[in-house]
Amino acid sequence: MILTVTPNTALDITYQVDELVPHQSHRVTAVRQRAGGKGVNVASVLARMGHPVIATGVVGGAAGDEIRADLEARGVAARFVDGVGSTRRTVNVVSAVHGDATIFNEPGPELTGPGWQSLVAGLDSLLGEAAATVVVLSGSLPPGVPDDAYAELVDLGHAHEARVIVDADGAALRGALRSGPDLVVPNRAELARATGTRDVAAGVAALKELGARDVLVSCGADGLVLMLAEGLGWHCRLPAPLSGNPTGAGDALVAAVAAGLDSGSTWQRMVQDAVTWSAAAVLQPIAGEIDPDDVARLAPQVLMESR
Amino acid sequence: MILTVTPNTALDITYQVDELVPHQSHRVTAVRQRAGGKGVNVASVLARMGHPVIATGVVGGAAGDEIRADLEARGVAARFVDGVGSTRRTVNVVSAVHGDATIFNEPGPELTGPGWQSLVAGLDSLLGEAAATVVVLSGSLPPGVPDDAYAELVDLGHAHEARVIVDADGAALRGALRSGPDLVVPNRAELARATGTRDVAAGVAALKELGARDVLVSCGADGLVLMLAEGLGWHCRLPAPLSGNPTGAGDALVAAVAAGLDSGSTWQRMVQDAVTWSAAAVLQPIAGEIDPDDVARLAPQVLMESR
Repeated sequence: MILTVTPNTALDITYQVDELVPHQSHRVTAVRQRAGGKGVNVASVLARMGHPVIATGVVGGAAGDEIRADLEARGVAARFVDGVGSTRRTVNVVSAVHGDATIFNEPGPELTGPGWQSLVAGLDSLLGEAAATVVVLSGSLPPGVPDDAYAELVDLGHAHEARVIVDADGAALRGALRSGPDLVVPNRAELARATGTRDVAAGVAALKELGARDVLVSCGADGLVLMLAEGLGWHCRLPAPLSGNPTGAGDALVAAVAAGLDSGSTWQRMVQDAVTWSAAAVLQPIAGEIDPDDVARLAPQVLMESR
Repeated sequence: MILTVTPNTALDITYQVDELVPHQSHRVTAVRQRAGGKGVNVASVLARMGHPVIATGVVGGAAGDEIRADLEARGVAARFVDGVGSTRRTVNVVSAVHGDATIFNEPGPELTGPGWQSLVAGLDSLLGEAAATVVVLSGSLPPGVPDDAYAELVDLGHAHEARVIVDADGAALRGALRSGPDLVVPNRAELARATGTRDVAAGVAALKELGARDVLVSCGADGLVLMLAEGLGWHCRLPAPLSGNPTGAGDALVAAVAAGLDSGSTWQRMVQDAVTWSAAAVLQPIAGEIDPDDVARLAPQVLMESR
C-alpha cells in the first residue's frame, strides 16, 4: 500500500476557448474540472495502473467538496483532512489556436498550525491502519507552513518503517533533506534551484550531502538519471522523445517508483518503469491519467546504461 | 416588496494578476468571489439602499452553495430553487496593466422543463407570500429554456397584480414582449439588436408595437430616455459623465426604477433616481454595489428635459 500526501491540493479547471485575446470577453465552449495537486495525480496514476493507494492531504470549502466527489467518481481512494478556507483552484485556458495553456494559479488558503497538525495526525493514523510501505510527499507547501515541514512527515513515515519519497521544489525540498528522505525526484530545473548548480552530478552530490539517500533526476527528453546512495547509477531513456502534454509526467514517474518500492522491484526495473509510465503520461491530455496499454507498448523500447 | 428573478445566476470570480500574457502561467495575487447574475445584482443594490427585496432564480452544485452563502453573508434575502448541474462561473482577470478585464464565461448547465417549472412554482408561491408589487426579470435565459420563457413569468406577475420589468437582450427580450411587460429597459445596443434599428425613437416605437408598455433606454454617458405608453417622455442625464466601472450600472438603474414603482414615486422622480443610482454604481469597483452617500450627492446634479 502506498500513501500519497498533498498538503496543497487544487481543483484544476480547464476552459476551452476559440482564441484568448487579452481584455476581451470569451465564451467558454467546454469546462472540465478535476481533483489536482501533484500527490493527487500520483494516486490517480497508481489507481489506473491497479496499484493499492490512498490519497491524503488537506482540502476545504466548496472546491474541497468537488475534489472529494471527483476522486470518488474516479475510484481513487482518498482520506483528506479538513482545512480552513476553500482549496485553491487553477484555471487552465486552452485555445484552439496552438500554444501552451494560459494558467491562473490561485494562492490558496493559509494552513495554520492546527491545520498542519491534523494533517500529521491523519497521516499517522493512516500509516497505522493501512500498513503502508511507501509514503509519497508531493508538491508545494501551502502558505503559512514552514519550509522544513516535510521533514516532520519524513520522520513520521520512518517511525512507521515506511520509505518516503519527496517530490518538491526549492525551499520545501531543501527543508525535507535533514530528515533523510529515501528518494528525492527533482527535475533538472528543480535540482539547480535546490543546489545552485546546473551540473547534474554535482547537484546530486549536493542533495546527498544535505541528507537525501537516493536521487532520481528527470531530464525531460534526455531521460532519467538515478544515483543510489551506494554509488551505483543508471541513465535510462526512450530512443526518441514523445510529443504531447508534459504536465503530469513527473507525477507518473513518482507513481512508478513508489509502485516499485512497494512491490520490491529491482532499481533497474523501477527506473525502466519510471521512463515508460512518464512517457505514457505525456500521451494523455490531462495530468493524472495513464493508459496501461501505452505502458506495455513502450516498455520494450527503453534504453538503459550504467553510470 | 420587490422580487428579482435570475434564471441564469453566476458565481463571479475576479483574479488580480500582474500582467496577463497568453500561454504563460500566472500567480493570482488576489481572489474575490461573489454571487452574480443581473437580477442578483439588482437585489444587492436594493438591499444596500434599504429597500425590501427577495432574490429568486435557479442555482445548483458547489457554485450554487457559494452564491447562497455569499448573499446570506451580505444580508441579501434570497429564495432560490435547485437546478440540476453546477451554476456557471465567470472568471474575470484584472491586471495591474491598464485595460478592461479579460473575461471567461462558462456556458452553464441546461435548465430542463422540470427545472423551469420549479422556478415558475417557486415564483408563484413567493408572489403569494410576499405580496410583491414589482417583479424584475433579469438577464439571459439558461441553455435549454425557450426564447419566450419570460412571457410566462410576465403573465404570472400580472396574475398576482404585480408590475413586471424585463431587462433582457435579443431573443429573450423579444420573447417577453407578447405578454406586455410593464417596463423594458434596453441599452442602445440591446434596443438595436431587438428591433433592427439604431434610431432610439424608432426602436422604442417598435418595442411598443411588439407589446412593451413603457420603455426606458439607457444611452450610457448621454443619460436615459424614458418613453411612456401615454406618449409622455423625458431625457435625463448628469452634466458630465463619470468614469469608473460601467459593469452593473444597468442593474442599479433597474433597481432604482423597481424601487420607485414599489414606492409609488412619480415617473419623473424614478428616472432621476435611475440616473443617480446607475452613476453611483459606476463609482464602485464591482457590480451590485452602491454607496447611498454617492446617490445623495449626485441627485441635485441631474438635468432633465421633456421630449
